[in-house]
Parts: sequence; C-alpha cells; structure tokens
Amino acid sequence: MNTNKLKRQQSASIEYLIPYVGIDIGGTLAKLCFALQKGSPVDFKHIEHLAIRSYSDFDVFFQTFQTNDVESLIDFIDQLNMNFITKKFYITGGGAHKFEELFQKRLKVEIIKVQEFESLRMGFLLLDQLTPNDTVFTYSKQKGQQYIVKNKSLFPFLLVNVGSGVSIIKFLDEGTIQRVNGTSIGGGFFLGLAHLLTGENNFNSLLDISNKGDNQNLDLYVSDIFGQSNAPKDIHGDALCVSMGKMTQKLKEGQDVNKQDIVKSLLLMTSFNLSQIAFNQAKLEGIQNIIFAGNFVRNHPDTMDCIDHAIDYFNQAQSKQNQNQAFFVKHDGFIGALGSFYDAFNKKVHESNV
Amino acid sequence: MNTNKLKRQQSASIEYLIPYVGIDIGGTLAKLCFALQKGSPVDFKHIEHLAIRSYSDFDVFFQTFQTNDVESLIDFIDQLNMNFITKKFYITGGGAHKFEELFQKRLKVEIIKVQEFESLRMGFLLLDQLTPNDTVFTYSKQKGQQYIVKNKSLFPFLLVNVGSGVSIIKFLDEGTIQRVNGTSIGGGFFLGLAHLLTGENNFNSLLDISNKGDNQNLDLYVSDIFGQSNAPKDIHGDALCVSMGKMTQKLKEGQDVNKQDIVKSLLLMTSFNLSQIAFNQAKLEGIQNIIFAGNFVRNHPDTMDCIDHAIDYFNQAQSKQNQNQAFFVKHDGFIGALGSFYDAFNKKVHESNV
Repeated sequence: MNTNKLKRQQSASIEYLIPYVGIDIGGTLAKLCFALQKGSPVDFKHIEHLAIRSYSDFDVFFQTFQTNDVESLIDFIDQLNMNFITKKFYITGGGAHKFEELFQKRLKVEIIKVQEFESLRMGFLLLDQLTPNDTVFTYSKQKGQQYIVKNKSLFPFLLVNVGSGVSIIKFLDEGTIQRVNGTSIGGGFFLGLAHLLTGENNFNSLLDISNKGDNQNLDLYVSDIFGQSNAPKDIHGDALCVSMGKMTQKLKEGQDVNKQDIVKSLLLMTSFNLSQIAFNQAKLEGIQNIIFAGNFVRNHPDTMDCIDHAIDYFNQAQSKQNQNQAFFVKHDGFIGALGSFYDAFNKKVHESNV
Repeated sequence: MNTNKLKRQQSASIEYLIPYVGIDIGGTLAKLCFALQKGSPVDFKHIEHLAIRSYSDFDVFFQTFQTNDVESLIDFIDQLNMNFITKKFYITGGGAHKFEELFQKRLKVEIIKVQEFESLRMGFLLLDQLTPNDTVFTYSKQKGQQYIVKNKSLFPFLLVNVGSGVSIIKFLDEGTIQRVNGTSIGGGFFLGLAHLLTGENNFNSLLDISNKGDNQNLDLYVSDIFGQSNAPKDIHGDALCVSMGKMTQKLKEGQDVNKQDIVKSLLLMTSFNLSQIAFNQAKLEGIQNIIFAGNFVRNHPDTMDCIDHAIDYFNQAQSKQNQNQAFFVKHDGFIGALGSFYDAFNKKVHESNV
C-alpha cells in the first residue's frame, strides 16, 4: 500500500474529519472506514474506496485488511492519524475485544467497542438516510444490477447476513432489530466441502471453479422426473427436486463426476436453501423486503442470481400483494464498520447543520 | 422366500380377504400390503409382517421387494392369488404406470392406479382411525420410542416425506391434502455426497459409517465461538452455527479430516435443515403436529433424534401453547401402499358391520 500521499498531507486539519473512524474486525477480514469532509486536501484515490455521499458534506472511504495481518491495518491508521489526529476509534466484530489492547498500545487512542448487531443497525440507518439512490439494488443475470429509486424507508426488512454461518435479522424500524433465525448452511459449509473436494482454499478461486461447472449435470429437476410437460400442475418444471440427485447413479455407472459441477451444485443448494429459509421467515414476520448480504453473497453473480430466482420461485405461490423481493447492497461488508461510528458521525452532522 | 405354506392353504376362501391388495412401487423399493380377515387359516409368520389391528376383523400384512426385482413381487402375488383369487390390485407410486402391462399380462387381474398423494391421504386416514395406540410415536435418544396415546384425531398435521427429495404435505382434515413446500436437500443429496466421499453405495452402510463419526469434530457450535458461558443470551450454546465450519481450518493445518465425521455432519445438517424448513412451514400453517417419514428417516435413531432435537430447539423461541411436536410412524414406508387399497377396504368393513 502506498502511504506516501498521506504523509505529504500532514498539514491537513482536524476539521476535515475524524473522530469518525469505524473498524469491523471479523474472523477473516478487517473492514475500515472513515468519513472525510468534502474538499479535504487528502487524495485517497490510491486506496480502494467507495464514496457514499450523505446528506451532509462528508464522504466515506473504505479499506479492507486481512485480519491475520492486523499490523498493516494499524500502520495505515497510524498514517491516517498523523494527518488528522483523532482520539476515538469505534470498533466492532469479534476482533474488537481481541485487538483492543494492541490498538491502545500502538495508537494511544480511546477504543469504543460497539456491539455487533448495534453497528449493523446504525449502518443500515445510515444507508436508509442517504439521498442518492445508488446503495440498494436488485440483481438477476437477465436484468443485471438495478439500483432502486428509494422513495420510502427501507424499514421494515429482513437482513440475511451470509458469512461462515447465516443470521437472519429483523429490522423492524430504526430502533428495533432482532435476530430471528439462522442456518448452519452458509459460506463455511460451502467453503469446507468445496475445499475438501477440490483442494482449493480461496473463496474467489472456488467461485471461478464453480463458474465452469453445470449443476444440471448432477441435480435432479422436476423436468428430469416427469418430463417437461408432465409435471404436476402445482410444481414448476424448473424446480430443483434433489440436489446431487444424479450423482449416485453416475457413480454407480462409473461415469465421471466433474468437480466443477459439484462446486456449482454446492453453491446453488446453499444459496437456494438460505433463500427458502429467509422467504418463510419473511412470511412469518409479514415483511416483504429481504436484503441478502455478507461475503458469501457480495458481488457474486451466480449467487445473487440464484437468490433472486429462488425468491421469485417462492413468490409464485403468493398473491400479487404479497410478493417478496430480494435486495443486495453496494457497501456490503462495510455496513458494520460504517455503523460502528455512525452515532458520533450523525451527531456531528446535526451540530454542523444547526 | 418360503411360499410352501401358502401353497398348502389353497382351500382358504375368498371371504378371508382380498380384493384388498395394495402396492406402492417406488424408485428403489416396492411395498406390498394385503388385508386378511382374522382367523384366516393362512400363516404369514414366515414373511416380514407387521399387523395393524383395525376396528374391524382384519389384519394387514406387509412385504417389501426391490423394484428392480419386480418378478419376485409378481411371483409372490401369484402364490397369494392362488389362495384367495382376487381380481383387483391397487397400485400407486412411479411404478404403477411402468409395470401396469406386466401385471396384467402375468396375473390377469384388474389394475386400479391410485394417485400418489391420494394413496398417502387414504393411508393416514386409516392410521388415524385405528384404535390401538401403537402407530404414531415420539423419539429421542434420551427418552427412546414412546407411542402416543391417541385420544383425538391426528389431523391437522404436516407430513414431511423424506425420500431422495423432501415434500412437505399439509393434511388439513380427512378430505384435504396439499403439497405446501419441499427441499432439495434430502436423502439423494446425502447419499450422493456421502457416496462420493466414502465410495459406499448402500444407505444402511452409510448410516453405520455415520454412527462411528462425531460431527462436533467438524461442525462449529455457538460454544466453540463464544465459549460455553459467553454466548449471546438469545442463542443457545448447543446451537449449530456452521456445518463443516471447522473443516477449512483443519485442512489448512494439514490435519486429518475423518470421513466418518463428514458423513455424520452431512446426515445431521440434512436432518436439521429439513426440520427447520418444516417447523417454519408449520408455523405458517398454524399446525402443531409434524410427522416425519420416508426412507431417510425410518428407524434411524440418529436422524430421528436430530429431528426431535431441532424441533425442540426451535420451540424454545415459542410460547408454551405454541409448541410443535415431531412424530414418527411405525408403518413408515407402507402408508402409500396401505392407502392405495383402503377405500375398498373401508367400504367392505362398513358393509360387514351393517
């Protein structure tokens, strides 16, 4: 990472930003974000950033680090701090406790630990209050990514947070969130089995392998059983009946079973299953909007398309007024980090608006 | 199979039974059952049978055959027919159509095809009307098998039929059944992946392999993440967070991953997941009784215990009046066959009671 640019900006003043630094340290990735007043002389083009323009005069910048390389994160913050001199860091995620002492020792700052669900709540509160309509989108391979024009609040919605495991969290209104369900079949399940079967360890490489596979070589569809036109009238021919349903027969007959097909089948069964559980939970809660987020989902076309297809499929049995919709979010992965410092950020914005 | 006994009973009269022969021909097994008037001189001790004593004077006998050995089934019926001379056979399941011609040619009988869900409906109607309390039971490893004392109708209930795929069927009352949900993660998924990972093809052998495994070596529980006492108060320490969640770490560290543990983990994730989907569907339908049946479930202690545990777990978030219960059935696997001839059986019983 090139931090020279940062060093050259020593003269920048505290008013351009900060204390708005939020950090979310998960098991695999540490997510850092910081808000910066517009017109700040610091140029962050050299870091991976996405700007959320809020109703205020702030931009928000994002950066990820490997959690097992927390020193790089600290070095980066150290450079940032030399420019802006902040005293408060808002930290959430499992690493908030684990690295608290290290942060205090190295950076000599005050650590404010934010509870994980609270940071998610605040993060979505921030997204909900943004004026530009470029944060929440629908996705299908056919229609591509379509940002929604947000003419009302996102609330209430279900958040399906798909990391190693899956948590389903109900966001009833700005103040009330509650974990209502979850499933053990998420990213960790996919990664574990796919790694075992391919030897590949990296999630993105596994997605590449999956892209070359065709799950229809292994999965049994209604049309495989009944023929395209003979399916019972309440079951659609494109419905997945048995994940891996053709595998046993293939193995018995000594046919080659393609590992790419297996990984694709695992990816889709995981995506379809969590969509199904989320859909029924949404019905139980009487909630229509379902936001799918987390590293398993983020920016992965096959996964998002499968989720969108699954929700559409389950909608077919519902009345028109009762349709659910799958949404995805642009700043997926950073929402906890965003939320972790939003409370202070929000107060500052309100003060400056007075 | 010893059919000598049957041959020796040629003199038995038609009134002892029949035309009550029901056959359910599935992809793997063909299930035969026939009703016999009490006091019949024919001794069926030499065949695998389970007697349901109904309110009438009939006993019902059961026998399974491999579907790919349908000739043995026909030979058996041929012997049976020499004793009782029936003209009507009620056949359900995918094989009803496939083998219709063969049956007519070989046995010269009338084939009455019964629609699959209709035969299930009639089968449960029969079970519901039985007086002895030994058909529906609860199961946990701790408490064992406990037959319920049935002081009211089983209806309404959800039937979770776990074969290669999983169908969830709502039995609202004696006349109304409807497929309301399903999942592709059932026996076919388990069998396919477990076969791939172990080379073992036989379902019962895979259960034996699973019995030697410990899923906690691979699965990540709440207590693994938070420690036994630090778990968030709304999440139980014994809750499964990530199926196969420890696998990636183990593989990275070059640790041995035990195939027995993998098969056990696959078995439990499948059982837990279908329980979860069934539980939420029951909530949506406002139904408390959930009967789990099908070859994946039948008589398998680990599977039944996991399902019972899962339903208990999901009940913890519910009020006392709103608790669901997992049930299993003694004649699991034969219910379609039973139902396929029950309509005629029922009429005969009513006639003889007049």
